[in-house]
Amino acid sequence: MDYAKMLPRDVRNLIREEKITKHTSGMCDGYAQANLAVLPAEYAYDFLLFAQRNPKSCPILEVSDKGSRFLKAIAPGADIARDIPKYRIYRKGVLDGEYNDVSKFWQDDFVSFLIGCSFSFESELLAADVPVRQIEEDRNVPMYITNIDCEPAGVFYGKMVVSMRPIPPELVVRAVNVTASMPRVHGAPVHIGDPERIGIKDLGKPDFGDSVTIKKGEVPVFWACGVTPQSVIMSVKPSIAITHAPGHMLITDVKNILLKY
Amino acid sequence: MDYAKMLPRDVRNLIREEKITKHTSGMCDGYAQANLAVLPAEYAYDFLLFAQRNPKSCPILEVSDKGSRFLKAIAPGADIARDIPKYRIYRKGVLDGEYNDVSKFWQDDFVSFLIGCSFSFESELLAADVPVRQIEEDRNVPMYITNIDCEPAGVFYGKMVVSMRPIPPELVVRAVNVTASMPRVHGAPVHIGDPERIGIKDLGKPDFGDSVTIKKGEVPVFWACGVTPQSVIMSVKPSIAITHAPGHMLITDVKNILLKY
Repeated sequence: MDYAKMLPRDVRNLIREEKITKHTSGMCDGYAQANLAVLPAEYAYDFLLFAQRNPKSCPILEVSDKGSRFLKAIAPGADIARDIPKYRIYRKGVLDGEYNDVSKFWQDDFVSFLIGCSFSFESELLAADVPVRQIEEDRNVPMYITNIDCEPAGVFYGKMVVSMRPIPPELVVRAVNVTASMPRVHGAPVHIGDPERIGIKDLGKPDFGDSVTIKKGEVPVFWACGVTPQSVIMSVKPSIAITHAPGHMLITDVKNILLKY
Repeated sequence: MDYAKMLPRDVRNLIREEKITKHTSGMCDGYAQANLAVLPAEYAYDFLLFAQRNPKSCPILEVSDKGSRFLKAIAPGADIARDIPKYRIYRKGVLDGEYNDVSKFWQDDFVSFLIGCSFSFESELLAADVPVRQIEEDRNVPMYITNIDCEPAGVFYGKMVVSMRPIPPELVVRAVNVTASMPRVHGAPVHIGDPERIGIKDLGKPDFGDSVTIKKGEVPVFWACGVTPQSVIMSVKPSIAITHAPGHMLITDVKNILLKY
């Protein structure tokens, strides 16, 4: 089946039936995908405040009602506990297991945060003829821990994690403009050029993901990354937290282009 | 003194010393002003979630730490309890008094929400040669309760309140574009044209503020209004809530133009 051409609802149904358990990259062309972070309600206010104070790292697309497994805005009817192909459960900040369905772990005090994902702006970059190297090389995007402090909020604090894409110099302005128009999926870059300026010693050794080829003359461009909220959550060691497994996202009913408006 | 040309910090100091107690309209040209809503912490999560779900009505510029009277981002060093010329205190949703200084009422569990204000986009409209009728006529902007439901969040729910500005038809597109570029101060209009479509029976009888002249051929254009969160807060009758008095805003250190980026 060509998942790229299918509607989000239909793919989510296949995921719910566990007929799809692989990563969602490339599925449902044109629709936004979202990161998931589920926390007990005791952490929800501090985390929502962290997101408000760090919108580039943590652009919230939707927050569930307490205890509810269902979304209303970005994917009406989606079951948060079953419609993602693979989940991770962390207990006290330590990975406890991966699951295709987390409904049996659901708690009445869970709050789910759906967070914008760079897949959305990458499809816009490609449409605008800006190359996206890790897609060309079929690798994961390189991610780095910077020396940039996030604005703390309650128990949550930490350094910003960024993703890097090498951009030909004549396309840097276009890359800024394309992504600036999508603040709900990380928005404009946080830094252009010299990695040391933001505390990155060696672009060849990312803290997460894979390294990619930087061609002669290309400029490293850095965007706030959705790994930031994950790393900030884990550092607090909540009793339990559930996230999507990397690359295994919630496919929403929101068209990428509508994230601009 | 020409308050329009002064820096926000200097005007806030005069306000703190109660040398200024009047409304802040026209002060500190080019700088954003903010609405204030102070609530006990028990309401803070629901209200922050309401804002996340209703960003056009309730664009949050900053949320204080619990119990803190000081801001960090939009007006570093500003004293929330003293740097606004006039406050209102509501108890169980009923106005209990107006004060120039609310420090003696401050509670350790207070959380302050600073919310973007249409003054910012009006100065951009004027700069772009789009007329702003209520400024021309030296009146308050007309505001109307619509039939548009806000997205509820916890205890907060209600109808959207909108402000209306009559715009010459050849400038409607420009008015949309200017304000769309400023999502942190209500952003693009929510409706253009027929008032009945959003439940407004008579433009001559606003629910709040004053009516203004609509010249022949002009199109009524409606923006989500900061009165929405105030009315939503009051409807739940919190034990205590503090707001700015209408027109008596916090003058921030953030330039209007930076609200676009």
